[in-house]
Amino acid sequence: MKLLRVGPPGAERPVVLGRDGTAYDLSGRARDIDGAFLAGLDAAELARDVAAGVLPVVDLAGGVRVGSPVARPGKVVGIGLNYRDHAVEAGAAIPDEPVIFLKPSCTVVGPYDEVLVPRGGEKTDYEAELAVVIGRTARYLAGHAEAAEVIAGYTIANDVTERAFQFERGGQWDKGKSAETFTPLGPWLVTADEVADPQRLPLRLWVNGELRQDGNTGQMIFPVLELVRYASQFMVLEPGDVVITGTPAGVTLGRPGTPFLTSGDIVEIEIDGLGRQRQVLGKA
Amino acid sequence: MKLLRVGPPGAERPVVLGRDGTAYDLSGRARDIDGAFLAGLDAAELARDVAAGVLPVVDLAGGVRVGSPVARPGKVVGIGLNYRDHAVEAGAAIPDEPVIFLKPSCTVVGPYDEVLVPRGGEKTDYEAELAVVIGRTARYLAGHAEAAEVIAGYTIANDVTERAFQFERGGQWDKGKSAETFTPLGPWLVTADEVADPQRLPLRLWVNGELRQDGNTGQMIFPVLELVRYASQFMVLEPGDVVITGTPAGVTLGRPGTPFLTSGDIVEIEIDGLGRQRQVLGKA
Repeated sequence: MKLLRVGPPGAERPVVLGRDGTAYDLSGRARDIDGAFLAGLDAAELARDVAAGVLPVVDLAGGVRVGSPVARPGKVVGIGLNYRDHAVEAGAAIPDEPVIFLKPSCTVVGPYDEVLVPRGGEKTDYEAELAVVIGRTARYLAGHAEAAEVIAGYTIANDVTERAFQFERGGQWDKGKSAETFTPLGPWLVTADEVADPQRLPLRLWVNGELRQDGNTGQMIFPVLELVRYASQFMVLEPGDVVITGTPAGVTLGRPGTPFLTSGDIVEIEIDGLGRQRQVLGKA
Repeated sequence: MKLLRVGPPGAERPVVLGRDGTAYDLSGRARDIDGAFLAGLDAAELARDVAAGVLPVVDLAGGVRVGSPVARPGKVVGIGLNYRDHAVEAGAAIPDEPVIFLKPSCTVVGPYDEVLVPRGGEKTDYEAELAVVIGRTARYLAGHAEAAEVIAGYTIANDVTERAFQFERGGQWDKGKSAETFTPLGPWLVTADEVADPQRLPLRLWVNGELRQDGNTGQMIFPVLELVRYASQFMVLEPGDVVITGTPAGVTLGRPGTPFLTSGDIVEIEIDGLGRQRQVLGKA
């Protein structure tokens, strides 16, 4: 099942897509697609209602805006250097255990929203990533079976990063991960039951039509279930939280001579089965 | 004016203290002390109503729990190494510009709540800090006068940190800053109009009655207004967000041979004019 949120920023309403692409309004059932909704979600039951046609159809034609498929998360947990080829291109050591950073949840925007190069930014970069949406509270998970149970579903993230802020301004990576619009999410949340194997998803990213990243989640150093189990040892994961799982090779940082993102550039990301994002760059 | 929240976790109600310590119920005026409340707060008007006695008195005797003085923040922005003597004891270079990290807002608890040593934690440490509560949206602030305008008030934070997770597990500091209960805030939010000079506040921390930190916010490398101006260049600060401004010398990390925190320990923090916190350590 595909869940999404449509409407102006801050006033999105929840929608579910049927198998044939028909969109059904969920606002009669849920105020929003947020932690509370995901914690109570019975995906099988909702799928039956969709199939039975008991939900009102909503028309998504005519350029309606799509928001992040989950309302502002409690937190966005970032995983660094989780693809060997990306660690190499970044000049970093292959990590012995997952590298964790955080992005403020106010960075989350919709999949087609404008991404702003921050003021003073010189090295704004893209990172195509598989995003995991948490559906149940996770605290000191014992293993991968438990980790699977707390995952509500998957979507696409662009972990936009200003490299100069990340590496050249002192301190922690968070400084380069936190600018407004820096976490486009979506277009849909695909419920976990419909993702047969999260470690077999081709992901690709284009800048102005040129293929820049062409990876597969099978190349992750630490797979999704391990990331969720691991993160839960250091923090409580809550329904609605998002874990972004790292990016494969091909970011601008790893392509000396390639210009960083600038106003007017177009970034597109696709993950098989999870849809496609498209952002036009602007200036803050 | 002093604002606080009392009641069980997740069901706190807003309260304001009069000059004589009488507590008045604010629930008729505000659902909670959160970003929306702070953005609309007219401190002078509320002070007049308190003085005029038009608010219902509430009895805080009898061990009512005090929560964080601001409902779950959108984000908690941490500043590292902002006191010279602490940077020296931590073996770190004096920073050229503020060091920023993030704590998940789910780490926020009340000022007297139990603090849990995380499972696997070996080096759980305290950090007494002045916390700044944001009252208006701040984006690319031009200077210190603008920074002053976005500050709703001040409170105390304990930036609890597991040093083994912070330094010995790879990657970013966030890994050691994110465990549940790791950010006690409170007891009150003192509105900015009542803090004559945020750079002249003695702050002290005791462990089991022994004075461990004895500093003054005047020793900050980057003062509060600069921190807020600076942070706003890298992220949007929103009403209800909290900026914790760094800790002076005296943490366990800087006292070789001193045991780290363990179950049963008592941490107390005091900042002149902002009250006093007290946490008993437990185990996750």
